[in-house]
Amino acid sequence: MSDSDYDVIVIGAGPAGMSSAVFTARASLKTLVIGDPDKSQLITASEVGNYLFADGRSGRELLDAGIAQVEKYGAQLLVNEAVHIVKEESGVFRIKTADAKEYAARAVVLAIGVSYIKSGIKNEQELKGKGVHYCVACDGYFYKGKKVLVVGNGNYAAEEAIELLAYTKDITIISNGREFSISPELMVGLQKGSVKLRKDKAFEFVKDASSTAAAAKSKLTVIFKDNSKEDFDGAFIALGAASTVGFANKLGMELDSTGFIVADKNGMTSVEGVYAAGSCTGGTFQMAKSVGEGCVAAISIVKKLRGIENYSDLT
Amino acid sequence: MSDSDYDVIVIGAGPAGMSSAVFTARASLKTLVIGDPDKSQLITASEVGNYLFADGRSGRELLDAGIAQVEKYGAQLLVNEAVHIVKEESGVFRIKTADAKEYAARAVVLAIGVSYIKSGIKNEQELKGKGVHYCVACDGYFYKGKKVLVVGNGNYAAEEAIELLAYTKDITIISNGREFSISPELMVGLQKGSVKLRKDKAFEFVKDASSTAAAAKSKLTVIFKDNSKEDFDGAFIALGAASTVGFANKLGMELDSTGFIVADKNGMTSVEGVYAAGSCTGGTFQMAKSVGEGCVAAISIVKKLRGIENYSDLT
Repeated sequence: MSDSDYDVIVIGAGPAGMSSAVFTARASLKTLVIGDPDKSQLITASEVGNYLFADGRSGRELLDAGIAQVEKYGAQLLVNEAVHIVKEESGVFRIKTADAKEYAARAVVLAIGVSYIKSGIKNEQELKGKGVHYCVACDGYFYKGKKVLVVGNGNYAAEEAIELLAYTKDITIISNGREFSISPELMVGLQKGSVKLRKDKAFEFVKDASSTAAAAKSKLTVIFKDNSKEDFDGAFIALGAASTVGFANKLGMELDSTGFIVADKNGMTSVEGVYAAGSCTGGTFQMAKSVGEGCVAAISIVKKLRGIENYSDLT
Repeated sequence: MSDSDYDVIVIGAGPAGMSSAVFTARASLKTLVIGDPDKSQLITASEVGNYLFADGRSGRELLDAGIAQVEKYGAQLLVNEAVHIVKEESGVFRIKTADAKEYAARAVVLAIGVSYIKSGIKNEQELKGKGVHYCVACDGYFYKGKKVLVVGNGNYAAEEAIELLAYTKDITIISNGREFSISPELMVGLQKGSVKLRKDKAFEFVKDASSTAAAAKSKLTVIFKDNSKEDFDGAFIALGAASTVGFANKLGMELDSTGFIVADKNGMTSVEGVYAAGSCTGGTFQMAKSVGEGCVAAISIVKKLRGIENYSDLT
């Protein structure tokens, strides 16, 4: 087992992810948490009153206590951003971080919150799947040798563009009005592939999508904020951190009609070995619910990996 | 609105019930918790390590903190035992406690843990529904004018016997080898109805249940520990506190095949207005899961009673 091999990788370092890690680590499963506690919604809370047994503490205090607890029981916290995930035929998951490192695990907990950000570009919804896409791993091959736009300013957009290089050399990333924030390792990959970076904001997508045949033939015209236009063959939306939709698409995972991960009462998703917890499963965005679901997902993993049908962590 | 009228009554004062009460009280719903924190499984924990953000505290400390938190946000804690529940046609729930008081509410959270205790009497399972029963409200009318045994030593058994008095005067309660522990108010009811109390232990039920017709005709012979025998028409098992099965039967609520309450991902049971949280819904018996489910049930109630589709308690 190399250093990058874990029993469990938890993606997300908010309450759901931390709770999962505490349980799997206590069960002696080698556990890695990839995420940044400072990016949890919880950090904005000045005083939390509704989480039982911890009344009146700030989000910052709770997160610090959580980090200490996660590490006390033996889980590792890697403050980084997961940008890619694949499941190998063997069932092993390989997760790539923004610094281009790879970590492998037998089970994964997605505790990635609600980071999915819509571009707000006009006609995004209408052209979804007909020129506008959300997952290079799923739809990249439609654009072999074509001209493609990637919309996003962060590591996730950079990773999607680098994956697109397997299909085409004509790639432009627009930051959509934000500052670019891309890790040095991913910047190297973008430069090597001559990916164009442009600090610009798209306003509208225009395309004849009246029929599948029409859509296949016609270009996707992007109208920018200054009213300039440029034709592309397709666009990939990759805003914010790796979104629920992004991870789900990479894994071929079932989402509900509102874009949340479908997980059963044991936290299992439609992809074997992948569990989900917290706000990314929908429902109420409360810390108590996230912590509870993190626990449930972890217990399911312990049962599965250890083969103990009735595992319980009594204290 | 009289003193006994609440928006929400939470039955059970463990982590699931307390968590529910914190959320409903914070949403200004008049909330009563009926239960005894000292009867929570949590009290046995000398040090809890797996509950996020509260590492290393004892069950006693946590429960005391929980009581303070529940009361701080305006919920009332009534240290008592709920022994009966009915849903009126108006949708109002009436809950009776061991001291024969009644409390009404518009919504109920069942957070009653896993208190269901089997009698261990031979043939209990085989004769279930054919002479051996678990719910007077459901099956009491089969025993109009008949001779009936109640098995149990506590308030719940007393309440079941008192309900049986509507059908028959020939009732015997056996403590099944334990000490009787019945509240003075319920004792008055038992004495008024000439219910016989006997500190005895049954060993076996014997009955011809080869067919429904045979079962209807034949007596239920109870063999006691000293090998003495006595014939009854039927027996009601009512051990321990009011069990999940007991409450569920009183309300006509769906249970799964292993006796746990079926609740959806919003904590809703099959009976409108009744929510369930914690170990009584099955799954893993971890505090984090109970607290999370308590939260989810409470949020559902707030949405329903306040008519706010997207209610969230931000801190």
